[in-house]
Amino acid sequence: MSNKLFLLPGDGIGPEIMDEVKKIIEWMNANLDAISFEIDEGKVGGSAYDAHGAAISEEDMEKAMTADAVLFGAVGGPKWADVPYEVRPEAGLLRLRKDLGLFANLRPALCYPALADASSLKKELVEGLDILIVRELTGGVYFGEPKEITDLPDGQKRAVDTQLYTTSEIERITRVAFDLAKTRSNRVSSAEKHNVMKSGVLWKEVVTRIGAEEYKNTPLEHVLADNCAMQLVRNPKQYDVIVCDNLFGDILSDVAAMLTGSLGMLPSASLGAPDAASGKRKALYEPVHGSAPDIAGTGAANPIAMVASFGMALRYSFGLIKEAEMVDAAISNVLDKGLRTRDIATEGANVVTTSEMGDAIIAELKAL
Amino acid sequence: MSNKLFLLPGDGIGPEIMDEVKKIIEWMNANLDAISFEIDEGKVGGSAYDAHGAAISEEDMEKAMTADAVLFGAVGGPKWADVPYEVRPEAGLLRLRKDLGLFANLRPALCYPALADASSLKKELVEGLDILIVRELTGGVYFGEPKEITDLPDGQKRAVDTQLYTTSEIERITRVAFDLAKTRSNRVSSAEKHNVMKSGVLWKEVVTRIGAEEYKNTPLEHVLADNCAMQLVRNPKQYDVIVCDNLFGDILSDVAAMLTGSLGMLPSASLGAPDAASGKRKALYEPVHGSAPDIAGTGAANPIAMVASFGMALRYSFGLIKEAEMVDAAISNVLDKGLRTRDIATEGANVVTTSEMGDAIIAELKAL
Ligand SMILES: CC(C)[C@H](C(=O)O)[C@@H](O)C(=O)O
Ligand SMILES: CC(C)[C@H](C(=O)O)[C@@H](O)C(=O)O
Repeated sequence: MSNKLFLLPGDGIGPEIMDEVKKIIEWMNANLDAISFEIDEGKVGGSAYDAHGAAISEEDMEKAMTADAVLFGAVGGPKWADVPYEVRPEAGLLRLRKDLGLFANLRPALCYPALADASSLKKELVEGLDILIVRELTGGVYFGEPKEITDLPDGQKRAVDTQLYTTSEIERITRVAFDLAKTRSNRVSSAEKHNVMKSGVLWKEVVTRIGAEEYKNTPLEHVLADNCAMQLVRNPKQYDVIVCDNLFGDILSDVAAMLTGSLGMLPSASLGAPDAASGKRKALYEPVHGSAPDIAGTGAANPIAMVASFGMALRYSFGLIKEAEMVDAAISNVLDKGLRTRDIATEGANVVTTSEMGDAIIAELKAL
Repeated sequence: MSNKLFLLPGDGIGPEIMDEVKKIIEWMNANLDAISFEIDEGKVGGSAYDAHGAAISEEDMEKAMTADAVLFGAVGGPKWADVPYEVRPEAGLLRLRKDLGLFANLRPALCYPALADASSLKKELVEGLDILIVRELTGGVYFGEPKEITDLPDGQKRAVDTQLYTTSEIERITRVAFDLAKTRSNRVSSAEKHNVMKSGVLWKEVVTRIGAEEYKNTPLEHVLADNCAMQLVRNPKQYDVIVCDNLFGDILSDVAAMLTGSLGMLPSASLGAPDAASGKRKALYEPVHGSAPDIAGTGAANPIAMVASFGMALRYSFGLIKEAEMVDAAISNVLDKGLRTRDIATEGANVVTTSEMGDAIIAELKAL
């Protein structure tokens, strides 16, 4: 098995939560026959800027390109609020997505039963919630050119971003969504604004055609992105897989994640196209939550989203389904036992630190 | 008093809810000294397309341009799903916004106390909620050029929309937001994605400067649009005024509206710049909800958002503050008496039809 993991902990709570994953990898290397990961580590975001003056160094980009999977923590924080646009912390993440060709961002929003009470929503609306947002990640307004601020004659400025999609970009993300739907409840909802955006018109057209030609047995519905955001609040369980562009995916997945009451628990996978020869795809795994600079270093960070992201790597990059299921089971078990980091603590919970949570997950892995 | 109201009921439930406003206007004309409105009516959206082959006729555009205020119902429905892009129902609304220069869209999201139970959110999170979203309405990706679908050599298509903002466009909407904040809880939150979009960089820069130079005493915070969507779900009461661009405003205002449990109750105002000579501004008032074609004609539509939109017209276009307050009070009173249209009915409610609700509001106006 090709087994190179490249770790980019990043900023804020990134390093702390990555530490817990490292402990789990060490334990797996020592105890599971199927597993012998080789780990390398680099810098990204503000910490890369502090070290190299760039949001990621060329050397680390090279390592990310050749790794079997990248595990990414989180980037950003007030410390870097004023660094130039080209080297801001997020630029590292965006470059990784673009240069690795990670066009398919999978964001499960699921409500852990033990945490249904933590949602802002009424319990009955989120209990059992299990949505998958499939977000296009290398196109749209994130990367379209021109993307610039220019000076106008009268001293004013003019800022432009370009929302750009081609047929093939929409086709491939649509297929990812339908393929995943077939492993789930077999329903796809496509969100766009075809009533306002030409990219939405093309989006709807292509998704409709792929659905009709290639996935006849999977029901497809179209929903305007603004209405989708509303419906997520009104009745999220109506959705199974939601497919959408980069910018709508950014917002809708954050709404969906917050609904679950499990924000600190939610992983994500960003996948490239399978290589024609080897069938292997580049991939990056990261928590949905951000770098939470306000709690960095306090031991309050929840490592579960990062651990679950590693679980997604086991599944999607290494085909280690049994081991991926072990990780998921270990997470469920610690929750069932009442262990909580501060972000998900309710009254009477057994509040533990980041590292205690990691240790508890390992203890569960041992016990499985 | 200049007193020309132009009514564009539109499609779906639009005409039904507009009928209730007409009854109220008639009553006011007959009974309130300050008021003598002259009413004219036109077509917009699918019904205009059916009549004229355009989403709004030139004649009706002309009437909208010369009216003191436009009252707009709602547009769209499955009947017009396949009409050409240029004449789709929404094109009528977009043209009105653009040609009338209605750059400032005010969307209050407030939770009527009697309806706190109807929210998806836990009651304590929305009780007393009172947010105002100030959305830029004539710029951004809605109107930027190029906006087109082109054919690529290989049979593929390429769709482009352009997100475009200039300094002055951001300045004027920022001032609207700060001016309104001063009449409320005096806090402004500006939402953008400066970490990804150049328009976000300029947005943040301009809002920061206007805040510092002209509104020193109003606290300003910046929030990423995706995080803002999350925070609206997590803890909406943290916000007072949120200012944002056209597309983020579309989505954030829908989330905010849905939180309140009062979607069928929420009005909006779209305002132009005051005329240099007369000080008068063009304006259009419309409910936040859509045309709800599924319930059109059943008497289930809630006319309150439309009536409240007329209330906003009294306030913002005619300076009839006392009369605007009468409308708001009449709405509160019918709710306090337990009258509910189906969309907001909870157990044991006194469920009434669209027109019974309108009559009840008039009865309250009489009693004030
Ligand atoms: C950090 C930022 C660039 C990123 C994005 O906008 O895509 C984040 O919000 C996300 O959703 O992964
Ligand atoms: C009908 C549509 C064009 C419109 C928009 O996208 O602005 C609507 O969603 C709104 O928010 O008023």
